[in-house]
Amino acid sequence: MQYRDVETTGEYLARLDNGADWRGEIESLAAEADADAAWFTAMGAVQDAEVWFYDQDEYEYEPVEFDEPLEVASCVGNVAWLDTEERGSSSGRTPSDDGERFAHTHAVLSRDDGEALAGHLNAGTVFAGEVYMRTFDTTLEREHDETTDLDLWL
Amino acid sequence: MQYRDVETTGEYLARLDNGADWRGEIESLAAEADADAAWFTAMGAVQDAEVWFYDQDEYEYEPVEFDEPLEVASCVGNVAWLDTEERGSSSGRTPSDDGERFAHTHAVLSRDDGEALAGHLNAGTVFAGEVYMRTFDTTLEREHDETTDLDLWL
Amino acid sequence: MQYRDVETTGEYLARLDNGADWRGEIESLAAEADADAAWFTAMGAVQDAEVWFYDQDEYEYEPVEFDEPLEVASCVGNVAWLDTEERGSSSGRTPSDDGERFAHTHAVLSRDDGEALAGHLNAGTVFAGEVYMRTFDTTLEREHDETTDLDLWL
Repeated sequence: MQYRDVETTGEYLARLDNGADWRGEIESLAAEADADAAWFTAMGAVQDAEVWFYDQDEYEYEPVEFDEPLEVASCVGNVAWLDTEERGSSSGRTPSDDGERFAHTHAVLSRDDGEALAGHLNAGTVFAGEVYMRTFDTTLEREHDETTDLDLWL
Repeated sequence: MQYRDVETTGEYLARLDNGADWRGEIESLAAEADADAAWFTAMGAVQDAEVWFYDQDEYEYEPVEFDEPLEVASCVGNVAWLDTEERGSSSGRTPSDDGERFAHTHAVLSRDDGEALAGHLNAGTVFAGEVYMRTFDTTLEREHDETTDLDLWL
Repeated sequence: MQYRDVETTGEYLARLDNGADWRGEIESLAAEADADAAWFTAMGAVQDAEVWFYDQDEYEYEPVEFDEPLEVASCVGNVAWLDTEERGSSSGRTPSDDGERFAHTHAVLSRDDGEALAGHLNAGTVFAGEVYMRTFDTTLEREHDETTDLDLWL
């Protein structure tokens, strides 16, 4: 286990825009906060969602798409810098020379009968969303990890 | 995306009472803390639960009731003022002239085989519950939003 | 509802070691932080997991084992001292005379098709894990509660 002792530099309450992308909205909040490191929890609802499952044998993400309204029962994640020159932009947005802020976002979603779905939330169209984010006095940078083939910080 | 820069005014660790209502207990904690805005995460177990799913086409909540013991695997939410004169009390408690504190509460629950259920937690009888709440130096007030027909803050 | 007004004494961002035990890693972080009370949220992935469901009639935990890779879509919990002389060590680690730090850990996991599983996370082999922990200026000690037959704090 590796860790950093950090201090909070800012705290934010946000409401996500109906129709926008859930993860993009969180990354926009991180940009507004000028965050080099952040942690967030959130909840709300989406109009659709694409969740990813990481295949630990094949070392690649498998997408699962849900084209239906879903509650966001839980959302936990963090914001770090991702080196987009090396890896390519994950978002289609134009990154700066420093890379781009990536919101690593996991979510639990639910259907009208209460059935829960979950995973790494790549995308989802916001119906309504409420977020609490904290920013820290450190810089998190994701770099390639050989063991997992993931981009990890620390 | 709309947001507010906030500062924490208080932090609370709480244990919910066996037999009480999960959401009501969180609203009681917010009242004890004299909170005008709060964010919380929680976990524990309930003896039963009523979760709501918001029908994004019909613009109304559909309740689903689970009359069985469930773990509370995750609970995320926030506390804001709700104008109960306009909307009617959601809780049956007597609101003040200022409205009442509403704990917008999403939860993930689980059955004995590990199956997960989730949604907007309207009610649930506490078996055991542990909560961490932060209060902020701002006032969140839920007002009617035309796009979603929900009461949203910011 | 019982509660304590607390103040944060430290904040930590951690990355869990691939191959280690998820809960053990969180307890190691709490030990590094010298925590007498902590709250955390986390996310990542595990190679397997053992979740427990508390039987509220029989007053005992029932384990469910998942021997498969799973995303950790949500993880919420807290750290308190557990009197291991009275109850026996839950972890196999050698506790001090003061007992041992116990990370009460609830998690939501997911399969490759997005199906969610959840419960009290007793154990799980870390694939990758990211944690945010806060420590507080108080001491949480779990003691036997007659109503639930659980070890609860406050």
